[in-house]
Amino acid sequence: MSQPAETPPAPPRIDRTAADAQQRAAGWRMDRLTSALVPTMGALHEGHLALVRAARERADRVVVSIFVNPTQFAPTEDFASYPRDHDTDLAKLAALGVDAVFMPETAEVYPPGFATTIAVAGPGEGLETDFRPTHFQGVATVVAKLLLATQPDIAIFGEKDYQQLMVIRRMVADLTIPVRIDGFATVRESDGLALSSRNAYLTPGERETAPVLHRALQTAAQAITTGGNPAQALDAARAALADAGFVVDYVELRNAETLDVVTNPAAEPLRLLAAARLGKTRLIDNIAV
Amino acid sequence: MSQPAETPPAPPRIDRTAADAQQRAAGWRMDRLTSALVPTMGALHEGHLALVRAARERADRVVVSIFVNPTQFAPTEDFASYPRDHDTDLAKLAALGVDAVFMPETAEVYPPGFATTIAVAGPGEGLETDFRPTHFQGVATVVAKLLLATQPDIAIFGEKDYQQLMVIRRMVADLTIPVRIDGFATVRESDGLALSSRNAYLTPGERETAPVLHRALQTAAQAITTGGNPAQALDAARAALADAGFVVDYVELRNAETLDVVTNPAAEPLRLLAAARLGKTRLIDNIAV
Repeated sequence: MSQPAETPPAPPRIDRTAADAQQRAAGWRMDRLTSALVPTMGALHEGHLALVRAARERADRVVVSIFVNPTQFAPTEDFASYPRDHDTDLAKLAALGVDAVFMPETAEVYPPGFATTIAVAGPGEGLETDFRPTHFQGVATVVAKLLLATQPDIAIFGEKDYQQLMVIRRMVADLTIPVRIDGFATVRESDGLALSSRNAYLTPGERETAPVLHRALQTAAQAITTGGNPAQALDAARAALADAGFVVDYVELRNAETLDVVTNPAAEPLRLLAAARLGKTRLIDNIAV
Repeated sequence: MSQPAETPPAPPRIDRTAADAQQRAAGWRMDRLTSALVPTMGALHEGHLALVRAARERADRVVVSIFVNPTQFAPTEDFASYPRDHDTDLAKLAALGVDAVFMPETAEVYPPGFATTIAVAGPGEGLETDFRPTHFQGVATVVAKLLLATQPDIAIFGEKDYQQLMVIRRMVADLTIPVRIDGFATVRESDGLALSSRNAYLTPGERETAPVLHRALQTAAQAITTGGNPAQALDAARAALADAGFVVDYVELRNAETLDVVTNPAAEPLRLLAAARLGKTRLIDNIAV
């Protein structure tokens, strides 16, 4: 009997409890296999898949977690309507040869009596926190749980959620969670719009306007790099966004490592970060300067 | 050449950084050796040593951590004067054959920019928290760090700090830290006083009075067990303490597992908990009912 030219990869192992995921991790460790985790909320797009491909290059085994975490949504936000399509997600991950998927139910992650919150000051203060006050507490707590359940050597996060990446780096260093946190460059549409599961909310007209966010950041970064006044560059970006129909939450220049307010632009690593709403959809983006 | 009848155990390995402790833990894991941690603030007394002996019975290897954690003391409390005697502590641990001691400096545990806090509601609310509002945040955060640095299979805590034990159990379950938390019965002087490093603060006269705390709890437990009214039993204990010269912070009857206020004494596991000050020294104690 002839074999097919290419054997499709085996479907990933699916763990639904932390105990099962930890048992799987202990087995890999005993076999001296390294692993990389890509945490997601599902609704996987090319940005997620780029993280998964990076994970395959950086470790022997790849784990993806899929969990829409209720505690990082405010009551007014889109938890209920956040896109969920597990079958499509799992097919995409199987096609990429992902080894394990950690996909717990909400009641497994937050059982009755759950009482623990991890708060990160420093990079967790300001920017997003001014508009989503409890968001990063939800993120930090669930990411700690995901890391402790799946026990990877490396965890890879997209830079699109740049403040989230800095919050997680800080938490992992502070708690000495034994994992390396890697950032991964934002994946964009050809017109510059950062990939996001929430782009699906945009109307066709809003979708046409949406790339203005990235272009406004690029223009501001260019101005600052060539010696322009940072405050004027930020004001110009805010004006460009408002002109295009955005309601601006913030456009800020920050220290790229601490997210502190910049005191000496010539001597610090810089990052431009923005959040703005287009109709009912809130978009965020950021770029290096 | 004749061997001595008994070879003294090798001195423990001393790790001063989380990275070193994690490397040591990974080695033991590869050798399929289990380990048990006894976290302490040093000033080791017979209570601590009983925990170390229990640890030896429960795992292949024993780790003791020694760290006087500044974040669990309020500014008005005894952080600066808390007894410290590392040489004596290490000699006691060497004599018991402890395998490793994790003894980090404050700057290793809380480096510049440290920004992460773990808060535990539920069992972390009320009782001690009413008098030491940030105490358990400090405890939970540092214990998470100690567990993640030393990576034991079991960690053993004295029941003398009963609320602390419940806070840690809750945190470990909530974050799915892969460790078993064991409580260990309070070790007492012959007159009933619970061993505590802070007993060293007592004047000779206060030391004579101190066992009244345990006796008042015993009397109240006896009254409740034999059908007495719980509120009256607690009032009698408070009165006995005040008569003996204590300033009472609290004497409370709680659910032994959740530390919730008791609604049905006949159907719940019960614990009596008390804190009271004698001169400048604050004593705590608790017993099962």
